[in-house]
Amino acid sequence: MISKVKNAMSSLVGGMIPHGHHHHPQQHGSAQNGGTDGLPPRFPYSRPEFLDLTQELLQYSTEHASRPVITLKRDSRLPWRTGYAEVINAGKSMLNEDQASCELLYIRKMSSKQQRCSISARLQSLKFILREILFNSIPMHFWGVFDGHAGSGAALMASKLLQRIIRDRLCDVAHLLENQNSPPPICLAKNGSPFQAEVKKGACLDGEEQDGLLDEPRFHMEKDISVESLVMGIIETAFRQMDDLIEKEKESFNISGGCCSLIAIHLLGKLYVANAGDSRAIIVRNNEVIPMSNEFTPESERQRLQYLGFLKPELLGNEFTHIEFPRRIQHNELGKKMLFRDHTMTGWAYKTIVEDDLKFPLIYGEGKKARVMATIGVTRGLGDHDLKVYNSNIHIKPFLSCCPEVKVYNISEHKHGSDDVLIMGSDGLWDVTADRDVADAVSTFLSGREPNDPLRYTLAAQDLLMRSRGVLKERGWRLPNERLGSGDDITVFVIPLAGAELET
Amino acid sequence: MISKVKNAMSSLVGGMIPHGHHHHPQQHGSAQNGGTDGLPPRFPYSRPEFLDLTQELLQYSTEHASRPVITLKRDSRLPWRTGYAEVINAGKSMLNEDQASCELLYIRKMSSKQQRCSISARLQSLKFILREILFNSIPMHFWGVFDGHAGSGAALMASKLLQRIIRDRLCDVAHLLENQNSPPPICLAKNGSPFQAEVKKGACLDGEEQDGLLDEPRFHMEKDISVESLVMGIIETAFRQMDDLIEKEKESFNISGGCCSLIAIHLLGKLYVANAGDSRAIIVRNNEVIPMSNEFTPESERQRLQYLGFLKPELLGNEFTHIEFPRRIQHNELGKKMLFRDHTMTGWAYKTIVEDDLKFPLIYGEGKKARVMATIGVTRGLGDHDLKVYNSNIHIKPFLSCCPEVKVYNISEHKHGSDDVLIMGSDGLWDVTADRDVADAVSTFLSGREPNDPLRYTLAAQDLLMRSRGVLKERGWRLPNERLGSGDDITVFVIPLAGAELET
Repeated sequence: MISKVKNAMSSLVGGMIPHGHHHHPQQHGSAQNGGTDGLPPRFPYSRPEFLDLTQELLQYSTEHASRPVITLKRDSRLPWRTGYAEVINAGKSMLNEDQASCELLYIRKMSSKQQRCSISARLQSLKFILREILFNSIPMHFWGVFDGHAGSGAALMASKLLQRIIRDRLCDVAHLLENQNSPPPICLAKNGSPFQAEVKKGACLDGEEQDGLLDEPRFHMEKDISVESLVMGIIETAFRQMDDLIEKEKESFNISGGCCSLIAIHLLGKLYVANAGDSRAIIVRNNEVIPMSNEFTPESERQRLQYLGFLKPELLGNEFTHIEFPRRIQHNELGKKMLFRDHTMTGWAYKTIVEDDLKFPLIYGEGKKARVMATIGVTRGLGDHDLKVYNSNIHIKPFLSCCPEVKVYNISEHKHGSDDVLIMGSDGLWDVTADRDVADAVSTFLSGREPNDPLRYTLAAQDLLMRSRGVLKERGWRLPNERLGSGDDITVFVIPLAGAELET
Repeated sequence: MISKVKNAMSSLVGGMIPHGHHHHPQQHGSAQNGGTDGLPPRFPYSRPEFLDLTQELLQYSTEHASRPVITLKRDSRLPWRTGYAEVINAGKSMLNEDQASCELLYIRKMSSKQQRCSISARLQSLKFILREILFNSIPMHFWGVFDGHAGSGAALMASKLLQRIIRDRLCDVAHLLENQNSPPPICLAKNGSPFQAEVKKGACLDGEEQDGLLDEPRFHMEKDISVESLVMGIIETAFRQMDDLIEKEKESFNISGGCCSLIAIHLLGKLYVANAGDSRAIIVRNNEVIPMSNEFTPESERQRLQYLGFLKPELLGNEFTHIEFPRRIQHNELGKKMLFRDHTMTGWAYKTIVEDDLKFPLIYGEGKKARVMATIGVTRGLGDHDLKVYNSNIHIKPFLSCCPEVKVYNISEHKHGSDDVLIMGSDGLWDVTADRDVADAVSTFLSGREPNDPLRYTLAAQDLLMRSRGVLKERGWRLPNERLGSGDDITVFVIPLAGAELET
């Protein structure tokens, strides 16, 4: 993510916050002042495990001058023949702050006596373990793009642990997942079996049942919850758990920065895409674009942020105003009328300028330059617990949300060809290439390749990445049309939706 | 609105809150305990002025047994030949708590010395006034549907004053409205003329301008605001002003209840539809449905309400929990796990039940029976300042919003036939008839009528209304398919989109 955490005010006073990473804790920006100096990193810097980079290649991947595109090795293979490509930024931060994950995990169905997912002492032979996995577990495919800022720590940690947290939470309810038509019980006893509370007959709270008597004795008002909603809720709460874990482990480790988190999970025929940040996922099916995520930025979340500032003005530290103006107000404009909008408005009206309006706006800037409290350009993600406004004691975190928006795509309901794909990318990909162009590019590329080519999707990912990075010319990284390419870290997954069939 | 303010808990303890209206202040539900007894009503109960009902007809309109459909008189005519029909509820409240407005207003362009819209002493002759109106003002068409609850007071007042507040606010900026391509100035001096502050050159806040230098000296970051955004903002702030006025005048008058407010404004070729509540507007064009509003209910605004309860738990008065469960929790379920969701979630997950979860849920019930704090079934509207949870001192108002959502339809960009209409209706219309059915019915009806029939749109409104009211049978008001008709007040406008041309 390019310059996502940068203190706009600091550049006014001539300072630039260096982008720290965990190898150089002394370089941490003043905005990250959690006193982490001296603590060991939670995970050492690396590229995704599935790339299996040697130390030499790891070094090679950080060359800002040439920005080499790193892809999957020719002889390695990801689940569903997933394609992957990445490239480092043009010098914004020393390391590539994007991270990625792709793996197949298993949700083990426990008998009531088994403990969660841990391999008990009884399971000693490899044969027994294999049988357990194959016959007594549900496969879950996981893909994640983690776009870090102000360090690699949070992105590294999330890329390694978030899928495990989700897997463990799903293990707890594994016995409720498989029958999609049988809704999960509303109440569970401690052992996970449904708890049947006594039904109070006639406990009619609303009094005006119009038509339809209830067939069975049950609570008057009882919502039907689907298995799909349960999986969504588990993903949502897992993001929070991941965020809490980062906060907790910061006591013992140096976990720098924060990260936008975009993940996709395939479970029992459905694809769940969860997004917290400004990465993006789209499905391209028959060359048609189906958006699978929305971006969360100061502009898209303006009203939520303003509402929080309005309700809890103490979070603004007497430095910021929750009201938005079309530009900064000058002192000599006091008493004049200026266009404004607050958390309730989408249009603009005039208000008389008072002293309080001279404070710096909570949301300021447009497009990629929009910032929350002049500090951060995304509004959802994991980490950032120590992030403060430059030279102040004002915490940004209360305005950031770790909660994703989850969208569901029913894979099993559609017939997919080998050119139908899910594309996941960090903002570096999308900032310079529009959805439609990405879809056209990937469709054209795939239609020209042999369907059985094992490198098919990785080459497609590489092709997309190149379209956003461009090539180095005298005037910087340029696209074929001479416009600027993305100078940001770029990460791309191209995932065939017929992947499950391709594997068998 | 049927039973929108009713205390679900009170029916548990055997009580029913009577639906008060201003003629019987002693009947005011305990929920409306603002001490208004003895104060005169702000406006006496009546039906919309344009109906011009005699006292006898006014009496007739309140007959719950026959529920007569009231329409425009044969010889009267609304702007744009707007069609209108209304009917009282089936006995829910003594009076029809819906109100409606339809009128043509003028936004007078002031010279800088003139005061806002008031007719100054200089304008004495009728001739002068007429010339002023014709040549120095902008016509604004206004339609409003105000669906009251717990009394008629707020709906009556809003139906008479909201359009004037909007008109006055537009007068203030009349000189900025006509040139749609010239954006309104960001800053105005007190006399309404643009105020040009000194430009600080080089006040570059963001530091990383990538491409494109600024052509003119102007503030580094300055948003372009359209005339359309300005009108939207004026409508949004006018709703707040109206709500504040109700609160203020409650000191001197009895202004009972609250009201959902759905309005449409035609100004300079654009239609602005603003909605706060659960009324609905749709455009039917070439038999295609274009939704022009969203409903605001405990279900659609769940996350906003939960977020407020989460941030300001004191507003819940130790009686309610902001967490949602699929049903009430029993005491013997303490320590068990139950499905829940909070303000961050759309899916559901399990949580261990603690003492605090036994409180009554902030949002409870499904569909039309969903309530905020067991009291109210809509979450936006005007009024309700005294509304409290039954038998408590917990105010509902902080959870209600008086702010509308505004949608814009560019009338002048489309060619409309005489069957293309905007339909506005209170929830009584939509609860039993779906958008698609309303569209089909109105299209079929209009295609069978002479285009020049002056009663064309009023008869269409009456036809729609009858489809939702049904006819009285032994088992109540029934539709042709024997399902229950709406027992609620019903109000319908059918507005031809070619109305401006029809008038000339």
